[in-house]
Amino acid sequence: MLSQVAVRILQRVIVTATRGRGLYDVTAAVAAVVTEAGALTALCSVLLRHTSASLVVQENADPAVLRDLERWMDRLAPEDASYEHDAEGPDDMPAHLRSAVTLSSVSIPVMDGSLALGTWQALYLWEHRRAPHRRELVVHVAGV
Amino acid sequence: MLSQVAVRILQRVIVTATRGRGLYDVTAAVAAVVTEAGALTALCSVLLRHTSASLVVQENADPAVLRDLERWMDRLAPEDASYEHDAEGPDDMPAHLRSAVTLSSVSIPVMDGSLALGTWQALYLWEHRRAPHRRELVVHVAGV
Amino acid sequence: MLSQVAVRILQRVIVTATRGRGLYDVTAAVAAVVTEAGALTALCSVLLRHTSASLVVQENADPAVLRDLERWMDRLAPEDASYEHDAEGPDDMPAHLRSAVTLSSVSIPVMDGSLALGTWQALYLWEHRRAPHRRELVVHVAGV
Repeated sequence: MLSQVAVRILQRVIVTATRGRGLYDVTAAVAAVVTEAGALTALCSVLLRHTSASLVVQENADPAVLRDLERWMDRLAPEDASYEHDAEGPDDMPAHLRSAVTLSSVSIPVMDGSLALGTWQALYLWEHRRAPHRRELVVHVAGV
Repeated sequence: MLSQVAVRILQRVIVTATRGRGLYDVTAAVAAVVTEAGALTALCSVLLRHTSASLVVQENADPAVLRDLERWMDRLAPEDASYEHDAEGPDDMPAHLRSAVTLSSVSIPVMDGSLALGTWQALYLWEHRRAPHRRELVVHVAGV
Repeated sequence: MLSQVAVRILQRVIVTATRGRGLYDVTAAVAAVVTEAGALTALCSVLLRHTSASLVVQENADPAVLRDLERWMDRLAPEDASYEHDAEGPDDMPAHLRSAVTLSSVSIPVMDGSLALGTWQALYLWEHRRAPHRRELVVHVAGV
């Protein structure tokens, strides 16, 4: 246990430009904030500041996993259903539904200065809108 | 980066009285704990102490989004299906299913003394039972 | 509020051996790390290092809730659908889908030295693969 030591805290806002629907690996961008913080034993918390995109931790090995995820979510929250909220087009409300069942924030321990993700894990920003968007992530690192 | 400084920690239990199924905006109640903590750079973590309600970060602008969410979730976890666990009525097990695919806890960075949510984001307590309930949230703020 | 005090941080990796698909209560194992940390007011964050299993906070009272959850998820992400990613068998891609809509990490405040879960809440590791697996959880406790 580490105790009786002062804590380092670093916050950064990361901006990711998406090219429309799909999963974008943001692990390296988040890890760069961890490196900048210089903490060896810490917690790295990430918040996505949007409700028509989300965060998800998924496999980084086979891209087919991401394509299957996309197709499955498309059936779970279909565009051709009838929604009351449809001002921004048929992909608008499905984007909110997708975000409601995935993550808005995730907290990843930092061990020995690195994100303690598993070997096959990556952190993805999941864009749910069809048009490109500018998405903001707030990264908060606190540790020693 | 802020370092070599002592950390402030504040915990509060917030009680929300729900009027049955629906989404209740708890952002202001959580923000009040952040203000009380007096930390400028911090992490605010919220835990919901129930398994038939959940937390969700969603759009705060158009109430139609919340109604569409409710209708969609009602189809995803229908009351008229057959469940083994039905002691408390037809809305009992669907409430657990809804909570399993939404959030039990969420962590929101605090920047410049305020929750760093996006412009269109609010934190909702999603009541999944039809009857009014008393719901407890534990709010933990740690920062400097 | 507790302030001007040094913070204790403890990290431990917990290994859980699963016997195939199902929900495994890991509350006691996580609570043991909290006890070891010796912090009274803290945040306990748990990360699951896998993408074919997940974390979920659910009712600890009636085991029928867990069986209903399993059956519902089996219909939501069926094995008999057609997936592009199927190298490891029919339960492989459904496991990723299940994990995408449940939790990879959860943060639980510690009050008076104990996890501040509700009376009826437990933290479960949800194994989504049919074969037994060795699953790693990273537990991070920080507080005073």
